[in-house]
Amino acid sequence: MRVLVIGGDGYCGWATALYLSNQGHQVGILDSLVRRHWDMELQAETLTPIAPIQTRLQRWQDLTGKQIDLFIGDINNYPFLEASLLQFEPDAVVHFGEQRSAPFSMIDREHAVLTQANNVLGNLNLLYALRDRFPDCHLIKLGTMGEYGTPNIDIEEGYITIEHNGRKDTLPYPKQPGSFYHLSKVHDSHNIHFACKIWGLRATDLNQGIVYGVLTEETGMDELLINRLDYDGVFGTALNRFCIQAAVGHPLTVYGSGGQTRALLDIRDTVRCIEIAVNNPANAGEFRVFNQFTEMFSISDLAMMVKKAGTTMGLNVELNHLENPRVELEAHYFNAKNTQLIDLGLNPHYLSDSLLDSLLNTAVKYRHRVDKKQILPTVSWRR
Amino acid sequence: MRVLVIGGDGYCGWATALYLSNQGHQVGILDSLVRRHWDMELQAETLTPIAPIQTRLQRWQDLTGKQIDLFIGDINNYPFLEASLLQFEPDAVVHFGEQRSAPFSMIDREHAVLTQANNVLGNLNLLYALRDRFPDCHLIKLGTMGEYGTPNIDIEEGYITIEHNGRKDTLPYPKQPGSFYHLSKVHDSHNIHFACKIWGLRATDLNQGIVYGVLTEETGMDELLINRLDYDGVFGTALNRFCIQAAVGHPLTVYGSGGQTRALLDIRDTVRCIEIAVNNPANAGEFRVFNQFTEMFSISDLAMMVKKAGTTMGLNVELNHLENPRVELEAHYFNAKNTQLIDLGLNPHYLSDSLLDSLLNTAVKYRHRVDKKQILPTVSWRR
Repeated sequence: MRVLVIGGDGYCGWATALYLSNQGHQVGILDSLVRRHWDMELQAETLTPIAPIQTRLQRWQDLTGKQIDLFIGDINNYPFLEASLLQFEPDAVVHFGEQRSAPFSMIDREHAVLTQANNVLGNLNLLYALRDRFPDCHLIKLGTMGEYGTPNIDIEEGYITIEHNGRKDTLPYPKQPGSFYHLSKVHDSHNIHFACKIWGLRATDLNQGIVYGVLTEETGMDELLINRLDYDGVFGTALNRFCIQAAVGHPLTVYGSGGQTRALLDIRDTVRCIEIAVNNPANAGEFRVFNQFTEMFSISDLAMMVKKAGTTMGLNVELNHLENPRVELEAHYFNAKNTQLIDLGLNPHYLSDSLLDSLLNTAVKYRHRVDKKQILPTVSWRR
Repeated sequence: MRVLVIGGDGYCGWATALYLSNQGHQVGILDSLVRRHWDMELQAETLTPIAPIQTRLQRWQDLTGKQIDLFIGDINNYPFLEASLLQFEPDAVVHFGEQRSAPFSMIDREHAVLTQANNVLGNLNLLYALRDRFPDCHLIKLGTMGEYGTPNIDIEEGYITIEHNGRKDTLPYPKQPGSFYHLSKVHDSHNIHFACKIWGLRATDLNQGIVYGVLTEETGMDELLINRLDYDGVFGTALNRFCIQAAVGHPLTVYGSGGQTRALLDIRDTVRCIEIAVNNPANAGEFRVFNQFTEMFSISDLAMMVKKAGTTMGLNVELNHLENPRVELEAHYFNAKNTQLIDLGLNPHYLSDSLLDSLLNTAVKYRHRVDKKQILPTVSWRR
């Protein structure tokens, strides 16, 4: 299959592009590289030293003989998007190409507007390009488990059947996103659902949990293929961030009580989930929603697990319960379904001591690169 | 109260601004006048000859002694928005200032992007301006009943209590909007809800039905105060459009079978609903949702009522069931609640023969201005 990975220079996108290429798919990467630009603006660097995209791709070709096509540009530039699609002729488009940080979207008005404009309008462009040029192409769109928020009822996969006043219907699951970033994904979901309905497009919305880990089979092949690993207060996510904090002897930054429960998955499962979606396209007109995660943990649980694993390695790991910069419940019900990807063949990598060891070892290996000024959260939801 | 009406040069906005001014509120109008520009681009004119905004306001002052402040500019221009708010110092902001036509949003990619960018980002700007400058100001935001679509269960006002697997929660009512315009309003609702939650803003989201009628007490005072009345295939809405079609002897353009049921209200109730919202602000942190309509009719019912009223006046009225340019159910359950505004004191004007007579008479009075080329729908949802 010909698979175009939009945002293929990013954390999930890069791992996915290499994995799909290794599985024998013909892969293209479309990326504006703006994430590297935002890193510079924030004066934050990935823990791991990532190579320029052209170096990455050349190394991949040298090692495997597989070529990945590269399209550098922004999907908000419609002529560029259309021309790239026409050149690549995708059977599937995997769309990771959005601003993906909640804190980034909450920095100020400009970043909120940038996030929603970039994500929602870029995705709208993609929907139109598929309609006009590749109406049979399967859109695999990255959403987030954060679209659901923390309702007091079980979280289903995209839809819920409601009985009300003696009648019944299956409707989009109500969304309670917790940042302007998460809101942008909710907006995308609504727009894509509509496009499927009126134009017969086929789409899979992957509501992904928090991804952890850095090594996949492919990104571990060579130093030049290494994936990014963010630890800063803006782009760093729970668990990855904790491991790096443990490696440099910084107290783990637990926001509030840490009772927030979240859905997580190993990056090796991210790439496999995308492959499953690619190999099992949605039907024409279908807006299919999968919850893409493997396990649920509270933030405190994660911190305690990192502390335990770190202590075993001889690291001195403290926990620091910071005042929560976000507005979110810290004690709540959380039970989400994730059966569809499992039913299609996902064999999860569960979070284990060995995985934590490996993540911690990577963190220790590169800890000389850590800028401690970047660790604490700087963005408040409240202002 | 000091009430700023954003979009105060439009159909609902103009009637609202004059009504609130007449009730003794200190009113400001903020408008970019872009709707008049879109009319020119579409080569469509309102049936009624509307005066320039400055002439309207001067006439209002001459007749009543009441001054309405005017701010001409776009809320997507943040410095302009902020400066206008600082100058006017509103107690309440009524936000009509969005692209409001479903067909306009479906013309092509550019119009879809324009609609979502204009509406969603403009509204985001407004949320930030209120947060930073007037956090206690009451935001009264126009949504639409079209946000709900046509679910097979009763439509509640913004929220629904769901029992699921033995647990229960009250969640945002699931939305199934039917155009990129309607989607923009859903996006707005989610964004505003979040802003209320994290910043403690107070907001009322008015999910308004299809508005009909042209005369309010104030707009009927003088020819220079006359309100716009759209009949073209892009901005013309059911009932208003039917009356004008009847007046010029054009068959009423019923889309498909006409079995679509919609919620409607008289423009005299629109202005009263806004006043009710102004006089009863939402609490700090509250995202309150009212369904703003008075009656439900099928499109066929409306067409038949116009035919009957027109025939009584001696007009020859035919119905033409066009192939439906939209993608929507033509036979469906539809039962929406609208108790909150009634409980706060709304006394509805129900659709009656006399109202239809008056609307038809207005249509006949100005029928020499009708451009018949503008009547048929030109925008298809399917393409």
